[in-house]
Amino acid sequence: MTMATVHIVGAGPGDPDLLTVKARRLLESAEVVVYDRLVSPEIIALIPAGTARIDVGKQPGNHPVPQDEINSLLVALARRGRRVVRLKGGDPFVFGRGSEEAAALAAHGLRFEVVPGITSASACAAAIGVPLTHRGLATGVRYVTGHCRADSDLDLDWRGLADPHTTLVVYMAKAQIGDIAERLLAQGLSPDTPAAAVCNGTTVRQRHAIATLADIAATAEAAAFDGPVLFLIGRVVALADVLAEPAATPMRAERA
Amino acid sequence: MTMATVHIVGAGPGDPDLLTVKARRLLESAEVVVYDRLVSPEIIALIPAGTARIDVGKQPGNHPVPQDEINSLLVALARRGRRVVRLKGGDPFVFGRGSEEAAALAAHGLRFEVVPGITSASACAAAIGVPLTHRGLATGVRYVTGHCRADSDLDLDWRGLADPHTTLVVYMAKAQIGDIAERLLAQGLSPDTPAAAVCNGTTVRQRHAIATLADIAATAEAAAFDGPVLFLIGRVVALADVLAEPAATPMRAERA
Repeated sequence: MTMATVHIVGAGPGDPDLLTVKARRLLESAEVVVYDRLVSPEIIALIPAGTARIDVGKQPGNHPVPQDEINSLLVALARRGRRVVRLKGGDPFVFGRGSEEAAALAAHGLRFEVVPGITSASACAAAIGVPLTHRGLATGVRYVTGHCRADSDLDLDWRGLADPHTTLVVYMAKAQIGDIAERLLAQGLSPDTPAAAVCNGTTVRQRHAIATLADIAATAEAAAFDGPVLFLIGRVVALADVLAEPAATPMRAERA
Repeated sequence: MTMATVHIVGAGPGDPDLLTVKARRLLESAEVVVYDRLVSPEIIALIPAGTARIDVGKQPGNHPVPQDEINSLLVALARRGRRVVRLKGGDPFVFGRGSEEAAALAAHGLRFEVVPGITSASACAAAIGVPLTHRGLATGVRYVTGHCRADSDLDLDWRGLADPHTTLVVYMAKAQIGDIAERLLAQGLSPDTPAAAVCNGTTVRQRHAIATLADIAATAEAAAFDGPVLFLIGRVVALADVLAEPAATPMRAERA
């Protein structure tokens, strides 16, 4: 029996140029690529014509493939000795559930390797001219997810998150921007704190909104984003005025 | 006058395979590469022979080039119309001071582009089998730096950092592991919390230590690391037992 290694590979934020050299090479030599909806169409287009593709896209409300079925699929493919690339948007170990897939493979004695990818926070921030840390503005950065199980509320330490010295990044935030802003304001974070929402970051479909924390929900709603949204909150967002490339013009809150 | 774009490029954690496709291409076409000591020798070796190299390595205590001189250098090179790659370890916008360099270029009306890189947290965690988030173990992750100005103590919100539900990653932590562990314990984080220290992650020189928070300082000291150290604290570190590749065998605390 052949013993193939399943590569659990981060596809990065969307721009194929931001794939790692390793990810690019693995994609080109795979026999089967298993991917989901967070991998951009530009990257899917790089999969060679003769390679099998399995879309396990987890479209909310649209019959997603449950995680345990994805795990079983990977185990079955690995047992057949296939060169499998499990391609995941961003980084497999940052809200990617890559560790659950790796654990399933490990439990069956199958080999795997995790290849990190550029996570959305780094890429989307750079794309709109926002550093995640900056002396005097942010001593650190933290990532949480706005995506929650159907049966639970956004159960996070809002008091701890309302920290003016730390950049806060919320993944998969589209439906929760208003809720998150409200909770941070309720914990005392200044309504003037700058905030940004980035949709389809680093792709040709990238759009973003910048406003104060008080106004960001309305500004983002007006932008009617179609795609995954990353939400950034913190004083570093003010640097977008200086550091954004001219092409990256955001929606802005209208001011009376 | 030509108007070149200075590319401020993340070199990722060290393994040349973890460069982005874009970083690799920019390196190959640069006229000048300005780099510092956090860029691995394996990546420096990829710079073509005909390309000028400027080492602004910030070796502590070893006459580093001050940040404002690096900024001035980039401005001067850009004004001469050179194709400059400013290569920085990890990601330029995560503790990279890339935003200070970008701001200096912007202040002089010079063009720049920031190319994100894989940050050490993602890469080192994957390399030792530790996911940064995992359902039931960590709802998020935060990055701080152990590097502090000569005139200041590690001035962080230790109470907020001692959060059992969030993975904590400390960059540039080598000299501070004991201090950090003590402060987290003092704030009530369990002494049994698993922790890891990773040195020269993703390179052939990678070594790491895993222990409880109570024991990690002694274990890391025994390892006598030589190189940049990333410090990871949180329940996700326990997954290294299941997810680490066999090659990645850590130093472990001896138990009585």
